[in-house]
Amino acid sequence: MTTDATRLDIPALLAALTLEEKAALLDGLDFWNTQPVERLGVPSVMLSDGPHGVRKQPEEGDHLGMLDSVEATCFPPAAGLGSSWDVDLLTRVGEALGKEAAAERVSVLLGPGINMKRSPLCGRNFEYYSEDPALAGELGAAWINGLQSQGIGASVKHYAANNQETERMTVSAEIDERTMREIYLPAFETVVRKSQPWTVMSSYNKVNGTYVAESRELLTEILRDEWGFEGLVVSDWGGSARRAESMPAGLDLEMPSSGGMGTALILGAVAAGKITEAEIDLAVTRVLTLVDKAQPALAEARTYDRAAHHKLAVEAATASVVLLKNEGGILPLDPAAGGRIAVIGEFARSPRYQGAGSSQVNPTQLDSALDALNAALDGRREVVFAPGFVIESEEADEALAAEAVAAAAAAEVAVVFLGLPASYESEGYDRTHINLPAQQVALLDAVADANPNVVVVLANGSVVTVSPWQDRAKALLEAWLLGQAGGTAIADLLLGTANPSGRLAETIPVKFADNPAVGNFPGSFGTVRYGEGLLIGYRWYDARELPVAYPFGHGLSYTSFEYRDLTASVVADGAEPRVSVTVTVANTGDRAGTETVQVYVADPEATVHRPEQELRAFARVTLEPGQSETVTLELGRRAFAFWHEAVRTWVVEGGVFDIRVGSSSRDIRAEASVELTGDAVVLPLRADSSAEEWLAHPEAGDWLRPLVGTEGIAAMMFDPHSGQMIRAIPLDRLARFPGFPVTEEQIADAVAKFNAA
Amino acid sequence: MTTDATRLDIPALLAALTLEEKAALLDGLDFWNTQPVERLGVPSVMLSDGPHGVRKQPEEGDHLGMLDSVEATCFPPAAGLGSSWDVDLLTRVGEALGKEAAAERVSVLLGPGINMKRSPLCGRNFEYYSEDPALAGELGAAWINGLQSQGIGASVKHYAANNQETERMTVSAEIDERTMREIYLPAFETVVRKSQPWTVMSSYNKVNGTYVAESRELLTEILRDEWGFEGLVVSDWGGSARRAESMPAGLDLEMPSSGGMGTALILGAVAAGKITEAEIDLAVTRVLTLVDKAQPALAEARTYDRAAHHKLAVEAATASVVLLKNEGGILPLDPAAGGRIAVIGEFARSPRYQGAGSSQVNPTQLDSALDALNAALDGRREVVFAPGFVIESEEADEALAAEAVAAAAAAEVAVVFLGLPASYESEGYDRTHINLPAQQVALLDAVADANPNVVVVLANGSVVTVSPWQDRAKALLEAWLLGQAGGTAIADLLLGTANPSGRLAETIPVKFADNPAVGNFPGSFGTVRYGEGLLIGYRWYDARELPVAYPFGHGLSYTSFEYRDLTASVVADGAEPRVSVTVTVANTGDRAGTETVQVYVADPEATVHRPEQELRAFARVTLEPGQSETVTLELGRRAFAFWHEAVRTWVVEGGVFDIRVGSSSRDIRAEASVELTGDAVVLPLRADSSAEEWLAHPEAGDWLRPLVGTEGIAAMMFDPHSGQMIRAIPLDRLARFPGFPVTEEQIADAVAKFNAA
Repeated sequence: MTTDATRLDIPALLAALTLEEKAALLDGLDFWNTQPVERLGVPSVMLSDGPHGVRKQPEEGDHLGMLDSVEATCFPPAAGLGSSWDVDLLTRVGEALGKEAAAERVSVLLGPGINMKRSPLCGRNFEYYSEDPALAGELGAAWINGLQSQGIGASVKHYAANNQETERMTVSAEIDERTMREIYLPAFETVVRKSQPWTVMSSYNKVNGTYVAESRELLTEILRDEWGFEGLVVSDWGGSARRAESMPAGLDLEMPSSGGMGTALILGAVAAGKITEAEIDLAVTRVLTLVDKAQPALAEARTYDRAAHHKLAVEAATASVVLLKNEGGILPLDPAAGGRIAVIGEFARSPRYQGAGSSQVNPTQLDSALDALNAALDGRREVVFAPGFVIESEEADEALAAEAVAAAAAAEVAVVFLGLPASYESEGYDRTHINLPAQQVALLDAVADANPNVVVVLANGSVVTVSPWQDRAKALLEAWLLGQAGGTAIADLLLGTANPSGRLAETIPVKFADNPAVGNFPGSFGTVRYGEGLLIGYRWYDARELPVAYPFGHGLSYTSFEYRDLTASVVADGAEPRVSVTVTVANTGDRAGTETVQVYVADPEATVHRPEQELRAFARVTLEPGQSETVTLELGRRAFAFWHEAVRTWVVEGGVFDIRVGSSSRDIRAEASVELTGDAVVLPLRADSSAEEWLAHPEAGDWLRPLVGTEGIAAMMFDPHSGQMIRAIPLDRLARFPGFPVTEEQIADAVAKFNAA
Repeated sequence: MTTDATRLDIPALLAALTLEEKAALLDGLDFWNTQPVERLGVPSVMLSDGPHGVRKQPEEGDHLGMLDSVEATCFPPAAGLGSSWDVDLLTRVGEALGKEAAAERVSVLLGPGINMKRSPLCGRNFEYYSEDPALAGELGAAWINGLQSQGIGASVKHYAANNQETERMTVSAEIDERTMREIYLPAFETVVRKSQPWTVMSSYNKVNGTYVAESRELLTEILRDEWGFEGLVVSDWGGSARRAESMPAGLDLEMPSSGGMGTALILGAVAAGKITEAEIDLAVTRVLTLVDKAQPALAEARTYDRAAHHKLAVEAATASVVLLKNEGGILPLDPAAGGRIAVIGEFARSPRYQGAGSSQVNPTQLDSALDALNAALDGRREVVFAPGFVIESEEADEALAAEAVAAAAAAEVAVVFLGLPASYESEGYDRTHINLPAQQVALLDAVADANPNVVVVLANGSVVTVSPWQDRAKALLEAWLLGQAGGTAIADLLLGTANPSGRLAETIPVKFADNPAVGNFPGSFGTVRYGEGLLIGYRWYDARELPVAYPFGHGLSYTSFEYRDLTASVVADGAEPRVSVTVTVANTGDRAGTETVQVYVADPEATVHRPEQELRAFARVTLEPGQSETVTLELGRRAFAFWHEAVRTWVVEGGVFDIRVGSSSRDIRAEASVELTGDAVVLPLRADSSAEEWLAHPEAGDWLRPLVGTEGIAAMMFDPHSGQMIRAIPLDRLARFPGFPVTEEQIADAVAKFNAA
């Protein structure tokens, strides 16, 4: 029952399907495929792990990354891509992934992961972009738009507030509403509004005691009714225990197959009158719509250009590397300068290029930095390699270390590849510290003693502390996990064939104890308190006036940039304010390079607690030496708004806002300010609202003032000295003071009257 | 209907009182007195503000400290007394207050205030002892035992979690149960268990959304059923809005009088069957018991010795001062040394000696430091006074400043009295920063430029930052608010007539941004999140490895002490462990002095998050030069226990505990360790408890293992490589994996069976 060879006639199908068939469609067929309905010609479609490569399993049942999948291009994981701040790049990576998925007849790629990096300990941080919701949202939307342009669906995950692996399937994230709205939801909102993903994956965890999989507020009211999500909600694998609760909450599709248990529970709930057939039809429509949307890409056999995708992987990896420091311009290494280069560290030969778990990709090829350096130098400079250590060993190997020190001593420069062993970070568990293995730091010390010209290249999926040892290195390249082409990218950057342009998408703290979630993460006995509230990442370090090793947004280049002529002007005031920010960026160095212009907004006059500044826009500008370009960024209403807990909506407070434009969150190059009218907020009144709040209400104030009069307590209430304390008293409490001229009954009536008005 | 001239026959009264009379007894008569029942001879008794002096109002209706009360000895407010760490002193102050209350025919003194100092911004911190619950609890119990020995009742306040003035009458303190149990309740628990106060005052605020005044959990289940409180619960003044809810929750007496409204609401609830007459009788019994207990002290006219009490006030003030620094032994000033002393700062002449609000006392006399210095020196050294600034002015007075600088330049030493204006801290509102007025810091700068021999004496009810300016002073005396005798105490300490012995009961941070509650305090729109959890005060600074200006427990002396021969031994292991800690303290200097030995306990092997260390015992030792004394302190079960959220009780985890003994939280002089067996904890099982938790259960594990078997998923579950991730999956989720050999029905049955066992 399809309209043509490939498309489904969904209304006709709904009419033809039995209730049992409908309920069955809401469960998976097996580990990766949806249920078909053969008698009606409804095919099954395949979902597959991502998101930095197509992880199509050769057999079912392995969601934990233990078996090899089909070969696919391994792009940089999100920790790398997030550092590119490059929406165009992310779109192209998405397109390439779409092509690969189509070639593999995978209809939905399970990604991107856009959760916030709340703690550096989160074992899955390498799958997430940033500690900032604006950055994560823009990058996620770009990736999805690219992917979906190929007729392949995304599954944005893990919605929502899934920020740790410890107790990940049951932990309740205890988050106040404002923090949820301002920090943990906005990336998802951006993605929905800007890229309408085919599917959203509900997360394993609870939020404030309710499983996300069973939260009608999150899956329906916010996601669909408020943001306008039109697609399907799929469970994280094994993340829907109570199907009779999750289905009416808005979780359309349970994956993997529950072997019929979910179907039985849904049918039982229908029989018991707890789920209506209309609700079933809605969810079935979403499943059929997904199947339908998948058909065009499945209609023809597709292929992709492996070489071109590897080239894109090189570009993506190059953009993902952050040059943290570069003393005396030790980098780039001049290929023509002569002098031996000691390449030290097993990671140079055996790259760590992705994290462990469901996202693990079987790459089409794998470049090592050592091979890439040798190939690029082509004998122009001698390269001597010494592994220095065994990656997964906690013990130093004295012979390897001695060999490395000797190599360094005999070289002009030592490039030391350090990083985290794969066992340090994975889906499924969290880290317990953020240090490099001690033997690697000891090796660096010994190498630096032998040769002061040290360049360190880091391989890690989430932040490591650099403060204890970074003074031993003149240059420091944070290379994250870079996918299959990372080795080539690193060689290009070391040799100046490419110019570093990555920016930190997460703060590198001086020490772990500085992190906002210390004392709260990962919680215990099933709950984790988000005690730092809004203050995650740089918002925390700024509020706490804490020094950091490297701030959010930081990243050096081999050239330099100047900012000029900042202007910020109100394009529209009122209900939908828009502010235009214009700044000219000039390349003042002698190489082509890319600057990432960052716009932070601050509300110095806020009457509520707000972060010191928040990233609201950014743009990459690539400039030839001497070239300059004027960049215009527009800020909308939400760039200025906060979530007002009392009226439960976004509010712009009238007044002056600071617009800070710079090269990192702590390298602001120019500031301007704008004044906005803001929103009128009328607080709802309760019997125990303070007299002050009652008096401030536009109508209740006029009602209350004459009642109170000017005698007795009123004289005190309006006394300039003592009045403040009296007016802070709830009206219902004042009513109990003998002689107060308003009764509790009058207050109750007034609450009803003025809140209704 | 009294048993003799003074005592009540409560059973007979209960039988004779009408329901209306009973309900009326649960409301106040007026602002300060309970209801009498004249026909039955039940008198009224008076309650009066405290707690550092008797604040008996000459007329009713002023709870905000705007009118003068009768004269009474003004002892140091809690910020001062808390710094004494002296339980004997607190007992004697309590006794003196009892005598004064009796003389004024006040039956209940509203104090002590033992809330935690969560944020230095809390406007009422001067009324509270400490950031540490053990210290606050011990001091509060001592004070109460002293007071109540005189037949006068205490009203320990503000129960509970009343840690700010902003929105104080309505704010909901959002606190997780473990933090409540380990930080915000223990001082109250200690006071109840050690001193059985006649009354407990319920606080204005809500806890987790419920008014404390209406919380049966707090007012009855925890306070009475668990801790054994036998007295009466009285509302904070105006703190019981909904009487039909507060009364059955356990709030016996509403104050002040509601003018009959409360009585009517109670009677209405009885008529509606929502309150039983048995509940009324219980509350009435408590009111009558209070009235009864008050009679002996009222039976005779009593007086007190003003001079003796002033002398005690001198002693208390002396013990309250903390010598923070003393470079080059600039203090004490030798009275016989000759050389002019410049006394600078208006506070020397016009002491700020207590805070504003309900605790304000009308003192029997008032010593200024200037007068006391002049009297003590009696011409032996010339004293030149210059006020330097106008206290309540934010603007510098150039002439006064110039005069002060000139005085300093012409003197051998300048003693500079700085502090917070009274308007900076008060009941009713919170501070917005913790800085001294800028003009005072500027004056200090100018004075120090003129004369490097600077001693600063601080007057402040709550912490001020000292880091920006303290390098300008060689010595720094934190003199808090010291009550009416502070001037004499300061003179004695400056001149070495007394030796400083106070210790910080709260950390002095380097800067405000370091404080644990930043970003959360004081909340907004009716809620405040206690996001720092257990980590208040030094617990935070330790966990965060933050430098502090002066750590909790710090305080110098004019002599020096050595610690020797620490031993820690387990006196009893098992269910009620006891550990005996013995240490010898020697006075190694040349003056008599007092050392405060502090015992901190750490649990380095804890499997749950715990503070780095916690104060569990302390003792003051006064020693002559060369003298030594062996101090023994005993630690009980609670010194090692944490509140286990899953089993909802105190749990000692078996293993090694560190016992750290020292002179401050960051000046540990000796360490020992003990090993305890600990408690066996069986976690309750849920369907979504992890397989790991199921397997760990003593009976459920034996049930589950054979069911799972060794094939299929079981092979994975017990695989050394992948097993951990599988075992972390909730059992009900595993049951949905096709082929898992345990059904959801079996799990549900097992939950019922093994939790019941």
